[in-house]
Parts: sequence; structure tokens; C-alpha cells
Amino acid sequence: MDPEPHPHAGDPVFDLHLGGKMETVSTVELTGRDELSLAYTPGVARVCEAIAADPGMTQHYTWVPNVVAVVTDGTAVLGLGDIGPAAAMPVMEGKAVLFKQFGGVDAVPICLATTDVEEIIETVERLAPSFGGINLEDISAPRCFEIEERLKASLDIPVFHDDQHGTAVVALAALVNALRLTGRDPGETRVVISGAGAAGVAIAKILIGAGIVDIAVTDRRGVVSSDRTDLTPVKKELAELTADRTGRTGTLAEAMDGADVYLGVSGGTVPEEIVATMAPDAIIFAMANPTPEVHPDVAHKYARVVATGRSDFPNQINNVLAFPGIFRGAFDVHATAITENMKLAAATALADLVGDDLSEDLVIPSPFDPRVPGAVREAVAAAARRDGVARR
Amino acid sequence: MDPEPHPHAGDPVFDLHLGGKMETVSTVELTGRDELSLAYTPGVARVCEAIAADPGMTQHYTWVPNVVAVVTDGTAVLGLGDIGPAAAMPVMEGKAVLFKQFGGVDAVPICLATTDVEEIIETVERLAPSFGGINLEDISAPRCFEIEERLKASLDIPVFHDDQHGTAVVALAALVNALRLTGRDPGETRVVISGAGAAGVAIAKILIGAGIVDIAVTDRRGVVSSDRTDLTPVKKELAELTADRTGRTGTLAEAMDGADVYLGVSGGTVPEEIVATMAPDAIIFAMANPTPEVHPDVAHKYARVVATGRSDFPNQINNVLAFPGIFRGAFDVHATAITENMKLAAATALADLVGDDLSEDLVIPSPFDPRVPGAVREAVAAAARRDGVARR
Repeated sequence: MDPEPHPHAGDPVFDLHLGGKMETVSTVELTGRDELSLAYTPGVARVCEAIAADPGMTQHYTWVPNVVAVVTDGTAVLGLGDIGPAAAMPVMEGKAVLFKQFGGVDAVPICLATTDVEEIIETVERLAPSFGGINLEDISAPRCFEIEERLKASLDIPVFHDDQHGTAVVALAALVNALRLTGRDPGETRVVISGAGAAGVAIAKILIGAGIVDIAVTDRRGVVSSDRTDLTPVKKELAELTADRTGRTGTLAEAMDGADVYLGVSGGTVPEEIVATMAPDAIIFAMANPTPEVHPDVAHKYARVVATGRSDFPNQINNVLAFPGIFRGAFDVHATAITENMKLAAATALADLVGDDLSEDLVIPSPFDPRVPGAVREAVAAAARRDGVARR
Repeated sequence: MDPEPHPHAGDPVFDLHLGGKMETVSTVELTGRDELSLAYTPGVARVCEAIAADPGMTQHYTWVPNVVAVVTDGTAVLGLGDIGPAAAMPVMEGKAVLFKQFGGVDAVPICLATTDVEEIIETVERLAPSFGGINLEDISAPRCFEIEERLKASLDIPVFHDDQHGTAVVALAALVNALRLTGRDPGETRVVISGAGAAGVAIAKILIGAGIVDIAVTDRRGVVSSDRTDLTPVKKELAELTADRTGRTGTLAEAMDGADVYLGVSGGTVPEEIVATMAPDAIIFAMANPTPEVHPDVAHKYARVVATGRSDFPNQINNVLAFPGIFRGAFDVHATAITENMKLAAATALADLVGDDLSEDLVIPSPFDPRVPGAVREAVAAAARRDGVARR
């Protein structure tokens, strides 16, 4: 397709991206008229008629139940921000590749030429007959919350904003093991989450679901608490779910003083003197990419367990541990949704995989641990059945 | 994915369709952290930034320039009519498979949960950054005309309604050879097109582009001519382009009397006594599927060249001869549109492939002739360059 030299030839990243990273492939052979008459006209008409008579036949005779749309509007791509739909495509293709490689889930990248909430929602609703699930990706907060909530309400297929829930599932898994290692009871653990965007909100909510009570989420103005007058509706709800319960207010520095756990999903940097005020045996997950909020070398001076989003340090909090297995498990049982219990089950399964190998440098499995996708898949499918959202 | 017996097990058509007919596949290997860091974070960010700085980089470093969306609303599926988006999926998957097999074009089936013209247009416009081209499929007339025209105007990628233009290209190719065989001059040939829907309109227009002057298009009420008071805007324009030029009016029977060519894209049946009134050495293309408007056994009693849409008779008018090579050629040069000249070039290339083998039973190549996709591709790419719509 691309015989001539390309503009960035010789750069390994661009060489790898030449021509894109994926393709569509037939799973049937069309070598002659007989096969063509089965796979296409006239044979295919009988399959169409069967589905028209019973829409449930879609689950058997199309690729729909195994394919997820990876949908973005390009407004919050990696740490690059609002770079638009065209420039978002390499990330969406990468995501699609990971879906297939780690979950056996077919995936189609969809980059939308609109950033309007209503338009995104109605567009995805119109696309829905073509897909078994919707993975929202790199859509900026707070728009991402409304888009996900309304699509979950209107569609009967799984809708999952990975920047929220993928991150939350993996962070919870690592935290569960870090609490085990440091002998903490979730109900007695003081947590600070730095960042009230997509990931911060989702992490707060999943931690609450996992029994953690004392959570302070901070944004640039400090702890998100109801004494503030500048809160968006999303942050107001977040305040009520977190800091308001314990009465915490004030600055990040005040919140960090004596905290057991720091979870960074904000970018920015936490000064060492603030890190130094945390409780003994502290837990620091500095997940900003590529620059952690607390460099691991600094974090290790004050914390017993340190995790980052990077592959070149131990304990990588990487969404790829979660989303392929979550969709695989949901698709296995034709789930109509991805419930909170399915996410909690995924986190528990990930945490349990570490087992007796649990140590300061191993609170979460490697993304390349071959047991990961299967363990998540089984746990998620079982939770879907328990929650009554499985269609088989 | 589907271990249990399926509802129609043992039926070859349904056995073949189990699990669908296609999948997405990675073209890069992700076997470890190093590959992951090139194909996904952090490496991918540099590709995103390159595209954000220069959108033309999309053509090099994503799959976009090689992937077509096969878009339907399920309103005119095969001969089944308005069966809805879910039931249309097997046809769209089949189309996607054919795109890849015959053209090396990646294809994603998109079945929309709307039949509203404005909603279809705006949805496709929003999807456009994700695709290198749009193949509209099985959308009912006259809605299909407006949808295609407006998308062609608003998008800078190829938009092609295959039910119109694919059929038209292949019919023209076969007709060119049939005229050669029967020694006719296009400018002196009388043509009747039965059916004023998507295919009929497109065939009329491409025949005009190919130099045929005397064309009468008929619908259920007879010749589409401006003396009628019941014409839609599309049919009014069609009348002016065709029958009005020669003053033809009246019934199908009147139009057929002495006609050289009958092109059926209507369904329905033409009585034998009407077929019998055609000119000597008549040409009959009865393209309705699965039941030709004139059965070949009847047609051969009065016509020298007979073609159908069926694979079990000689001279199969099959769109698969055209659309894969047309998109392949357009994609090869990153064409911004598919022009009339590109369609005419495709038809000429198809006709020329028959060469010295031309006979009553061979006016169009077999869909499995391995020369077909390459010949169409080359001709279309060259025409795109001549028309100034090639971006490379």
C-alpha cells in the first residue's frame, strides 16, 4: 500500500505504524461460486430473514456479539489533550489491537468528528446495532460522565469508559494487595486521590464499593468538599460521596498529612516535603504518564509500596490488565451491561492472581502474565450471571 | 465463542455463518513491553502528535486510508426490503468480506438504527474521520440519492452507493461487449431500462455518459417521461435525461416494441409476447435476483445476448466485479472522490478483459477471473489522476 519512503522512515515508532496496526479479515473462504452463494447471495438472505424474525439470532450468525466499538472524540488523548479525532486514531487502533490480543475481542476504532455531548450520544445510539459493546475512550471530563451514563441507560449492550473504569479496576486490584501487604483494614485506611477527572471519580467510586470509607479527592483547588462554592455538579456529588463523610477539607498538603494511601491520576508533581508527611508504611500509586506525580525514587523514601503507570518500574497500573478480560467475560455471557459487581470481580481476580508472590514489588500482575485475561474473563462472566445481566 | 449447538445447525448456510464471517486482526506483534511501548504508550503519542501537526500523516500511519465503512439503514436489503439494521448485518459482513478478498480493502459493516435522511447523513459525516471511504448499501430509493449526493458534497473521501454504481458499471461493461458483438453503435441503440430505483437511475446515467442517447426508463406506470403528472423530483430529472430527449412515452410494451436492449432491474416479469417484439439480435440483461424478469430460456428465443444476476447462467452481472477494484484504485491514489470517469474507466477495463474471447456467452468476465481486480484498480487509479482527484 505504501511503497514509497515515508516521512519518518527509520524511526522505530513510525516504522511500526506504517499502514496502521490492524486489518479486517474474513473468517470464511470464498474460493468459488458455491462458497459465494452460501456467504453472500442468495444464501445470506435466509440468515437475514432468520434475524428479522428473531433478533436474538444476531448473537449466533453475525460478528456483532464479539465486536466492540472503541469510540472517542479526541478531546483527552493520553496526556496530549484535545488533539481531535484524526490524531486520536493511532491510540484507538492500539486499543483495538490490545482488545484482540489480550481478549480475543474484535474491535473497531471510531473517531468522531463532533465534541457535542448530544451528538456523540445519538451517534453511538445509531451505531449500536453494529456492535456488541461500546468502549468509550479519551473523552474529556465532565462530558465523559454524562455520555457514559446516558448510553448505559439507553443501550442494552455493555458501555464502558475505560479511562474511568479500566484504571479504577486495576488501581483497586493493586490497592487490595498493598493493603494486605501493609496489614491495613480498608475501613480504617485514609486515602487521598489527586485528580477529580475521569479516572479520579471512578477510582473514588470503586474504592467506596470495596469498603474504603475515608477518601479525599483533590483538584487544583484542594480537597473536593461541599464547603467549596466552585464545584461542578459532578464534583458536588463526588464531595458528598468522599470528603464530606469525614469532614475533610483544605489543601492537598493538609489531606496528605498522615494519609495511608496516595493515588495520583492528575499529572502535576507532589513536593517531597508533602510526601514526607504520609503515615508509616505508606502506599503511593503515582499513575500519571509519562511523568509520575511522585518519582519512584522519591516515593520509596517514604512509602512501602510504590506503583506507577510505567512499564520500566515495578507494579505497573496498566488498563490492559482489565478491559480485554472485562469485555471478553461480558461478551461470553452476552451481558447487557457491565455492572459495579463485574468491575469489583475483575479487580478481585487480578489481585488474587498475585497470590503467594505478593511483595512490595509485586502487588499487581504483569500485563504479559498469560493468566490475566482468563482470570478476569471468568470472574466477570460469573458476576454478570449473579447480577442477572447475562443473556446466556 | 459458541460451543453449544446453534438453532439451525446442519444447514450449510447457517453453519457457515456461525460466529459471523469476519474479524479484526493486528498487523503488529505485541509480544512484550518493548513492542507495547512502540505500538501503544508511550510511543504512540508521537504518532498522534505528528498527525495533529499534519493531518496528511493519517495517510501513512493509520489504517484509515485502507478501510471503507459499509453503511446501511436496512431499508432495501437484497430483495427482502425494509428488514432493519440488525437483519441487514449478514449482507454487510458479506460485502466486507468481498471487499477484502477481491480488493485488499479493509471494511467495517455499519448498520444504523435510523432511517431518517438527515440523521443518516450527519451520522456518516461524524464517522468520516475513521474511514478512507464510504460504501452505501441497501438504502431504499429515493432516499439513497439524496444521501449519496449530500455526502459526496460534504466529505473529501470517496462516497459510493454500490446498488447504484456498482450495478451500473458492470451492466455497462457487459453492454459495451454486447453492442460490439451485435455490431451496434451506442448512439444508434434503443435501450429500455425496467426499474427507476437506485440501479435503474444509475444505469441510465452511466449509459448516457457512455454515449447512448435513446433510453426509456420504465416504472410500474410505464415510461418515465415528463408528460406524466406523478413524477417525483428524481424521476422528473430522469425523464429529462432519457425519454424526453426522444419523445418516448407510454407503456413498457410500447417501449419494448423494436427496442435493441432490455435492462431489467425491477423484479417483476416481462410477458413473452412483449419480449417477442424486440429488434433482431436483441440484448436482454434480466438482472433481478433470484428471479430474472425474463427467464433465460425465454430470452434466448428472441435475443442474441442474455445476461442475468445469477451465477448458474452465463454472463453474470455481479457487483463484485466492480466495487472492490474501484475502491482499491481510489485508495491507491488517496482519491477524494469517485468520479463518473472513474466508473466509466472501470466499466471499460472490465469489458476489455473479455478481449478475443468475446461471444454470446461471454460478454463479462467471471467474478473469479483473477485479472479483474487488478484491471479495475489500474483503470480507476489512472482516471482519478486524470480527473485531478488523486492526492498522490
